[in-house]
Amino acid sequence: MTATPPALPTLLVLDADPLPRLGKLTGRVRVEHASESTLADQLPSADVLLVWDFASHAVRAAWPGEGPRPRWVHTASAGVDHLMCPELADSDTVVTNARGVFDQPIAEYVAALVLAMAKDLPRTLELQRERTWRHREAQRVAGTRACVVGSGPIGRAIVRTLKALGVTTALVGRTPRTGIHGPGEIDRLMARADWVICAAPLTDETHGMFDARRFGCMQPSARFINVGRGQLVVEEALAEALTKHWIAGAALDVFEAEPLTPDSPLWQVPGLIVSPHMSGDTVGWRDELGTQFVAAYERWEAGKPLPNVVDKKRGYVPGH
Amino acid sequence: MTATPPALPTLLVLDADPLPRLGKLTGRVRVEHASESTLADQLPSADVLLVWDFASHAVRAAWPGEGPRPRWVHTASAGVDHLMCPELADSDTVVTNARGVFDQPIAEYVAALVLAMAKDLPRTLELQRERTWRHREAQRVAGTRACVVGSGPIGRAIVRTLKALGVTTALVGRTPRTGIHGPGEIDRLMARADWVICAAPLTDETHGMFDARRFGCMQPSARFINVGRGQLVVEEALAEALTKHWIAGAALDVFEAEPLTPDSPLWQVPGLIVSPHMSGDTVGWRDELGTQFVAAYERWEAGKPLPNVVDKKRGYVPGH
Repeated sequence: MTATPPALPTLLVLDADPLPRLGKLTGRVRVEHASESTLADQLPSADVLLVWDFASHAVRAAWPGEGPRPRWVHTASAGVDHLMCPELADSDTVVTNARGVFDQPIAEYVAALVLAMAKDLPRTLELQRERTWRHREAQRVAGTRACVVGSGPIGRAIVRTLKALGVTTALVGRTPRTGIHGPGEIDRLMARADWVICAAPLTDETHGMFDARRFGCMQPSARFINVGRGQLVVEEALAEALTKHWIAGAALDVFEAEPLTPDSPLWQVPGLIVSPHMSGDTVGWRDELGTQFVAAYERWEAGKPLPNVVDKKRGYVPGH
Repeated sequence: MTATPPALPTLLVLDADPLPRLGKLTGRVRVEHASESTLADQLPSADVLLVWDFASHAVRAAWPGEGPRPRWVHTASAGVDHLMCPELADSDTVVTNARGVFDQPIAEYVAALVLAMAKDLPRTLELQRERTWRHREAQRVAGTRACVVGSGPIGRAIVRTLKALGVTTALVGRTPRTGIHGPGEIDRLMARADWVICAAPLTDETHGMFDARRFGCMQPSARFINVGRGQLVVEEALAEALTKHWIAGAALDVFEAEPLTPDSPLWQVPGLIVSPHMSGDTVGWRDELGTQFVAAYERWEAGKPLPNVVDKKRGYVPGH
């Protein structure tokens, strides 16, 4: 994946305000800013496209079918679902992502949710508001079982963190290999798990994979967590599973439509924790994303292979 | 610590309802139940006293000064502060505790609080109630520093669990030794900690040790957690430290007076999480406490040394 840059390449940046750490490239690149509405006009003259806003689907809409286009697209996110389209997949444009930046923060966030649910912390906070002292028995996390779906670096970081807390883990990925179960085993693994955690990429194969049938496989005492993408989950089915006590609880950090609007029924589903797509975003994350892009740019500038190249057919960076 | 039991010893049980796992001793011991009001009358004829309710101070009040008394007192708790008095300390009665049962559950509970505060989970739940989507940046737990005060098995389990999450830990105990700092270093360690966690026994030396001066040593971004005993903390000073933003947050699972009454100002101190003394109590804990006592009783019956013998002058089981 090498490419020789021209004298002063054009870096087109979509929706980043402020743009951290790019000052280091001053004089080495011509930076232009695009908005969703100007993107289509600007794309043909750009050498590199930096997509800052993972929620924007503008790239998909604006990508040129034929003719001039960026030779490299970098997204400051782990998922690439928001920008992939057949024209981009079929082109020779290289796509890279922010693999690595979100792994440990998301793993910690999942651990926070697992522990909070095991210790009944949401109820404790409710009782505190009501000034009510009510002792309950909490659950032990050590010795429980988790099924983590998604064997990329985020899923693997979740496994490491839960194992450190004494949880027995099973990891599910697209391609079975040592330590990773194939998709055919999901139902069986979900049925014996106390925690089912979704950290899979959104692809045609994974879209809607957590549906009523799969929630029906889970134990009534089990809980479901999604830190992947909202479209992996059939939200109505999850709401039904919670309301009918098929499962004991759930936490969603991602949603089919973000931001969740005030009239969404999801805010009030019993046993559901709703958070605003923040699991990976720890203090300094924007700087980290900027630093990561600058390092990649310097490799591109020097004609070296880029890190974190996405397999555009599969929709993610193939694993180690 | 051996003693030869008589033909059919009397086991006096204070306030346990229901009493788990003692059925195994049927025919080997005469079990009598005592309430706080009958305890003084029943104590002289008891061979063994099992104290189930850690919140009761009845033993201290009822303990016979001279004359017949139990040769062994077991408390189904980690702390012994509720029963120690000079007469018991000076007597030849052996005191044992439930060392071990609460270690891992309390360590998980502390990890739950640390992660919940780092990830701003209480605020997330508030915003959910308000149906408001508001993205925030969370904190990374890995790389932060904790000062854990109390070097018994609970403090050490907390250190192990936080280390597994990538936290740098300093452990403080009464007697400095390898890996354990002495009390003289507390101020310095608190001043550089992101998390100050109290898991110390309540003794004359530790009573009120977390006071206004000590909270003043902490960083404005730091948080305080108490899973020891309420009397270790000057509650008014903690409330002031939170209200004046000397520190960023706190969680109390134990209080000077329990249960906390509805009119307590602590329910509404900003940045304070209040929970009802439940950190060590996971599903099955009563059975574990019963099993532990039965195992100890069988050793006592056989004239073998008892486990978890409390140093009555120090007020805890001396450490490894």
